[in-house]
Amino acid sequence: MIYITRRERFNAAHRLFRPEYSDEENFAVFGKCSNPQWHGHNYTLYVTVKGAIDPHTGFLVDLKWLSELIREKVINKVDHKNLNLEVDFMHGKIPTAENIAMAIWHELSEAVTAAGAALHTVRVEETENNSAEYRGE
Amino acid sequence: MIYITRRERFNAAHRLFRPEYSDEENFAVFGKCSNPQWHGHNYTLYVTVKGAIDPHTGFLVDLKWLSELIREKVINKVDHKNLNLEVDFMHGKIPTAENIAMAIWHELSEAVTAAGAALHTVRVEETENNSAEYRGE
Amino acid sequence: MIYITRRERFNAAHRLFRPEYSDEENFAVFGKCSNPQWHGHNYTLYVTVKGAIDPHTGFLVDLKWLSELIREKVINKVDHKNLNLEVDFMHGKIPTAENIAMAIWHELSEAVTAAGAALHTVRVEETENNSAEYRGE
Amino acid sequence: MIYITRRERFNAAHRLFRPEYSDEENFAVFGKCSNPQWHGHNYTLYVTVKGAIDPHTGFLVDLKWLSELIREKVINKVDHKNLNLEVDFMHGKIPTAENIAMAIWHELSEAVTAAGAALHTVRVEETENNSAEYRGE
Amino acid sequence: MIYITRRERFNAAHRLFRPEYSDEENFAVFGKCSNPQWHGHNYTLYVTVKGAIDPHTGFLVDLKWLSELIREKVINKVDHKNLNLEVDFMHGKIPTAENIAMAIWHELSEAVTAAGAALHTVRVEETENNSAEYRGE
Amino acid sequence: MIYITRRERFNAAHRLFRPEYSDEENFAVFGKCSNPQWHGHNYTLYVTVKGAIDPHTGFLVDLKWLSELIREKVINKVDHKNLNLEVDFMHGKIPTAENIAMAIWHELSEAVTAAGAALHTVRVEETENNSAEYRGE
Repeated sequence: MIYITRRERFNAAHRLFRPEYSDEENFAVFGKCSNPQWHGHNYTLYVTVKGAIDPHTGFLVDLKWLSELIREKVINKVDHKNLNLEVDFMHGKIPTAENIAMAIWHELSEAVTAAGAALHTVRVEETENNSAEYRGE
Repeated sequence: MIYITRRERFNAAHRLFRPEYSDEENFAVFGKCSNPQWHGHNYTLYVTVKGAIDPHTGFLVDLKWLSELIREKVINKVDHKNLNLEVDFMHGKIPTAENIAMAIWHELSEAVTAAGAALHTVRVEETENNSAEYRGE
Repeated sequence: MIYITRRERFNAAHRLFRPEYSDEENFAVFGKCSNPQWHGHNYTLYVTVKGAIDPHTGFLVDLKWLSELIREKVINKVDHKNLNLEVDFMHGKIPTAENIAMAIWHELSEAVTAAGAALHTVRVEETENNSAEYRGE
Repeated sequence: MIYITRRERFNAAHRLFRPEYSDEENFAVFGKCSNPQWHGHNYTLYVTVKGAIDPHTGFLVDLKWLSELIREKVINKVDHKNLNLEVDFMHGKIPTAENIAMAIWHELSEAVTAAGAALHTVRVEETENNSAEYRGE
Repeated sequence: MIYITRRERFNAAHRLFRPEYSDEENFAVFGKCSNPQWHGHNYTLYVTVKGAIDPHTGFLVDLKWLSELIREKVINKVDHKNLNLEVDFMHGKIPTAENIAMAIWHELSEAVTAAGAALHTVRVEETENNSAEYRGE
Repeated sequence: MIYITRRERFNAAHRLFRPEYSDEENFAVFGKCSNPQWHGHNYTLYVTVKGAIDPHTGFLVDLKWLSELIREKVINKVDHKNLNLEVDFMHGKIPTAENIAMAIWHELSEAVTAAGAALHTVRVEETENNSAEYRGE
């Protein structure tokens, strides 16, 4: 069993809020992250996949393939986008780092399994101080 | 003559566009940075100040004072904000890294001079790959 | 189950030694870390908390709350301090990265549990090359 | 139970290929990593060891000892070397990050056990975007 | 006058040696960097360009254009290559960081000038500890 | 003319204070950096040297030589030391980043000149947010 990790990056706008709340109520719960005019981040995404090394190639899976998969399923949908308004897999979800990590897991898991490996963790770094990780548990 | 640098960070939304252009024209000039629904960044700001060391303290200026100045004049106005809509010193400017660096220079320069030092450079890092620096030239 | 991590930093002096030893004996065991006149580090602390996402907020716990908890229970006690002489929760312990990580776990665990989450790991990075992690095992 | 991690670095040349393949076949499988004239990397190695804290020293194991062990068993053999041609423990293996991580595990494991600890993970970072980790499973 | 910097990366093999020397003589001058079987690095390249902000776009030059220029003129020629054997602009030069930086300057300078800006510095980071910068002086 | 930079690191304790002041007066001027029981940092030192490339080696100066010079003249004197009490070249100086950078310049300058190059800058990073640079002006 080996684990490999691919890092990808995207830049997006978002806002943390509940639509049924007033701006004041949203500020009380979400602080400055609730700013109605949006803010944004450079998100760093770490996708870790596990499985057996293919003795023929020495790869678990080709990291180039993993990078292309993440770009097709995730980066192309979120990069330079508004996470609240423009991303199908975030529809109806508050775009916290927690929810983003969990949603990206569901975008990637099936294709990783189909390639003979297993998704191990999805980690989303929102700032150098804050990150969330989902492990499919 | 000594140079000291203070790093500060802010997270903001922005969009690169000219209002007199259509979305297609803006995309042709600004690419995905023109997305009408915004995107955003973790901006890292490096402010470098130069001058003589105060023999009494060993400081050029107290870095705590410099940090507070940057927070008062810049960070409090841009952090978790929309750079196109909510920042007085960016009003009427396209919020490229170049324009942000130049505008922050003008926010800080006078107060640094008043403290007996001189502003040397303002550097704005938009991503790990892209940055702009203004030196007052 | 989701995992979130908050990074905090502190700068402190310390010395690795046993008081019943001579300086020569301490040097034989602890090397230059035993310097009787102290040395110090920029410590980076990573606190990881696990639990369920609150569907109302999309948070496991508010990272701002977690940051404030770490500051109250840990950073305010260790930042710009001497870890051997001034920190209640290090009293009687040799301030290795291992012991610091374990002691910080015990400072934080109860309050994290009271907030409906669980402490998962405390990692202390002493230099870019050396770190220790405690998982409550 | 505590975990400590030591980071070490080495710079090496390598090539991903199977000798029974033509250059075209190797390019089809390994892409530009198959370049017959070699390429290279700054590898970053993270070795994590686990066990009980020695109450006498506050150490799991002395990180200086761990560093010297890694240098003797690994770094001295791979630094400024060709991983395909000059490294005994990579003989007959395609030098992917996966295979390097697994081979380094086998170089270190016995000596770590003999010191009263256990090897937990070996992580090899080939670029800022790509890494592999072996956990002895 | 504004300065913008683009970071790009490439991975390459190289060897420092003079062909008229024996291996022993090369080792005496170049140390382990003279290994006849090659070694390699993850090179990080910082290209800084200076000039006036275009008031129409807020750009000095489009960083996407600068990235593509660097890729066309430099990265495509050096990435996953052997700097001694396969790179036209390094022909006959010892591939030290100093010589690489100077050679890349000459690859880029004319095209940057043609775009209405001026090349300011080319910096090549060979490891986290070692870098060279050329300023056209 | 080429510029090369070598990074070195050291860990030290220090305190900012004037001995003729009371603890209260020192706290008013130097804040928590005046803690009488010391604190410390992981200092990162960047030494930049300039001059002509030696056509015989492709080096300005051998970076291994520069590293050894910095270790002999600086690192061996400050690493795991108390900057106020144990470092000859800091004697009688308040160990601010500004004063450390200037003092290290004077430790290195003559030997760099004797090697046929010139010292360009000495930069001392005290934390990820704070640094000072001296250029011999």
